[in-house]
Amino acid sequence: MQAEMAVTRIGLSGLAVMGQFLALNIAEKGFPISVYNRTTSKVDETVQRAKVEGNLPVYGYHDPASFVNSIQKPRVVIMLVKAGAPVDQTIATLAAHLEQGDCIIDGGNEWYENTERREKAMEECGLLYLGMGVSGGEEGARNGPSLMPGGSFEAYKYIEDILLQVAAQVPDSGPCVTYIGKGGSRNFVKMVHNGIEYGDMQLIAEAYDVLKSVGKLTNSELQQITADIFSIKDDQGDGYLVDKVLDKTGMKGTGKWTVQQAAELSVAAPTIEVSLDSRFLSGLKDERVEAAKIFQGDFSSNLPVDKAQLIEDGMNIIKAKSMEKGWSLNLGELARIWKGGCIIRAIFLDCIKKAYDRNADLANLLVDPEFAQEIMDRQAAWRRVVCLAINNGVSTPGMSASLAYLLTSKTRTSYVFVC
Amino acid sequence: MQAEMAVTRIGLSGLAVMGQFLALNIAEKGFPISVYNRTTSKVDETVQRAKVEGNLPVYGYHDPASFVNSIQKPRVVIMLVKAGAPVDQTIATLAAHLEQGDCIIDGGNEWYENTERREKAMEECGLLYLGMGVSGGEEGARNGPSLMPGGSFEAYKYIEDILLQVAAQVPDSGPCVTYIGKGGSRNFVKMVHNGIEYGDMQLIAEAYDVLKSVGKLTNSELQQITADIFSIKDDQGDGYLVDKVLDKTGMKGTGKWTVQQAAELSVAAPTIEVSLDSRFLSGLKDERVEAAKIFQGDFSSNLPVDKAQLIEDGMNIIKAKSMEKGWSLNLGELARIWKGGCIIRAIFLDCIKKAYDRNADLANLLVDPEFAQEIMDRQAAWRRVVCLAINNGVSTPGMSASLAYLLTSKTRTSYVFVC
Repeated sequence: MQAEMAVTRIGLSGLAVMGQFLALNIAEKGFPISVYNRTTSKVDETVQRAKVEGNLPVYGYHDPASFVNSIQKPRVVIMLVKAGAPVDQTIATLAAHLEQGDCIIDGGNEWYENTERREKAMEECGLLYLGMGVSGGEEGARNGPSLMPGGSFEAYKYIEDILLQVAAQVPDSGPCVTYIGKGGSRNFVKMVHNGIEYGDMQLIAEAYDVLKSVGKLTNSELQQITADIFSIKDDQGDGYLVDKVLDKTGMKGTGKWTVQQAAELSVAAPTIEVSLDSRFLSGLKDERVEAAKIFQGDFSSNLPVDKAQLIEDGMNIIKAKSMEKGWSLNLGELARIWKGGCIIRAIFLDCIKKAYDRNADLANLLVDPEFAQEIMDRQAAWRRVVCLAINNGVSTPGMSASLAYLLTSKTRTSYVFVC
Repeated sequence: MQAEMAVTRIGLSGLAVMGQFLALNIAEKGFPISVYNRTTSKVDETVQRAKVEGNLPVYGYHDPASFVNSIQKPRVVIMLVKAGAPVDQTIATLAAHLEQGDCIIDGGNEWYENTERREKAMEECGLLYLGMGVSGGEEGARNGPSLMPGGSFEAYKYIEDILLQVAAQVPDSGPCVTYIGKGGSRNFVKMVHNGIEYGDMQLIAEAYDVLKSVGKLTNSELQQITADIFSIKDDQGDGYLVDKVLDKTGMKGTGKWTVQQAAELSVAAPTIEVSLDSRFLSGLKDERVEAAKIFQGDFSSNLPVDKAQLIEDGMNIIKAKSMEKGWSLNLGELARIWKGGCIIRAIFLDCIKKAYDRNADLANLLVDPEFAQEIMDRQAAWRRVVCLAINNGVSTPGMSASLAYLLTSKTRTSYVFVC
């Protein structure tokens, strides 16, 4: 579709898959949307997709001026481009056509200080700036992400009605979106959120490894108690896909930043740290194959609740930064909006939200009686699983680090030698 | 003593305890030394000490001009002042009196990029700049530290004869000093060295905790197998000192920087990370007392060789940075100079040095057959100790993290879930 005048509610610039899917999601909720991309074939692709998926109100433009002019005032444009220089370039392109009171939203994973710098520069031009974490990957963007907007509250209000409908909807808990706070707080929160996801996936991988390597479960048994991925066959037809995936991964910046910020803020975040380490080690496939040759020989369930411990890691980092920067972040609300859309989705995010609702200044989740009870109920099983893994030579850095954190935290007397 | 003209071999500015002790050490080895401090009472104190300790050739000055002029050319001045602004101030003060070809040595724990910036600025004034890590605390400074000089090789040559005599002397291994490399490499190496020391002390503390809490050893039994500290009585006369020390510690910047740089360089350094975390948690004494009330109830040797694993952590960080910056650092030499003076002093630093002598480009210590054999010989005991601790509710984050690293490294197939 091509609109002759200002007809759309919002614009979106940057049409890689995430951007396309978010645009379709917004259009599907009944908000006409303008889309633009420097490589214009992406614009046509998105418009075509919108047509196929039920004639959704997506309007494509090949130049920034008509793109901007097609949006009703005050204009709001979501950017979904790579963090760093591409964000600065996109801002420059858009700002040339925007007017006083218009707003740009950065939906990428940007370093929080870059966002604060840009917000200030935009303010000097009379423009509003919002950052918004979009969690849940492509699937989330299309069907309901967890959204973490922050920055200009005025700009947030322009589009609150859109975000409430576009976000993941969790029964009894509401849309997975809340205004996070001012400045770069939303980047910081999204960064730590990603760090928690690193830990989450690490713990899942370890649980899988224990079940498979120690418990000797087959892929079809694993599928019954865990995830559908275990039932998918390799497209060569000679086995399960999960056994063919190369055990090697990289990382984007947010996990690294989370670990560096935790150290900067004097916050212990061991589960997130070892998760990052595990990714680093996974990358050293050749060295591991070498070491496996040497370390042969005698290294011959309930899933533990160390996920609770992991989220504690992340909340402590966010709390420390919120205090440092005066962001006054609401940790209970964060727990609520991570219940849908994103990877975390833990059942006891409810338990965490309630703990923070009872006491917003909670020093530590472990000192909340109900949270602590959850942990106590499962700590014996947790310790059993870790020892079982160690006895069988299966590596469980995440579970072990979380357990050590718990044991240290409950220790009235800790021994620390210093020089 | 006060010298009328240029008579001393070297100068030292910054006379806190470390500076005083290093000056006395240098003088004792037969090198006349000039000393200066902004607060001049420290100068008199040092000269007085030198007199008492056997009329050592220490010459004190109350103003920077006569201090600098008292040193023979080309002049070399060691600074031992706090990292950051005090270093810049001291350089400015000294540089005003130094001449082309003279040299300043920074003996503090500076961030490596600051050293590189200063080296460049000095070069523009025709001055040489050397950084030198001094490890071993006050006792080391007085009686033989581990020295890590780097930067201008020309300047290193000016004072090599002094350093070879001042450093700790280890039989069959020589003086604990070697030229590290150019640029800020020595800061970086000293930083990681400190990170290794964090891990070292963490592992000692954990071993102590296991022996005491699980093994129920008394302080006098502990003293027999470990350190003299356990035999020292409290000066109130009502028990052992070790039981009275507050279990709370802080940290200086180097451990934090090590963790942040490891993340930056994509290097897994779990033992160092959890050691930093343990310090953070030790600081939360109130929260731990609170949590101990809640987590009551049923949490009811051979020292493992995870110290080897720890040094592996550190060496991997140094290797990655050396490659990034083109520093060509000699890891075997580092292992050698840490054998004396500093806290590390591990017996198998020999084993590590030999491994790097066999193959300077060793991807990883674990793939060296002899090193690996050392680990294999002890891995069963190591796993037993960690499980014993976990079963008894004793926190061993360092031992657990090191073990997980080993188990991951020897795993041909690792499971890492990514989104």
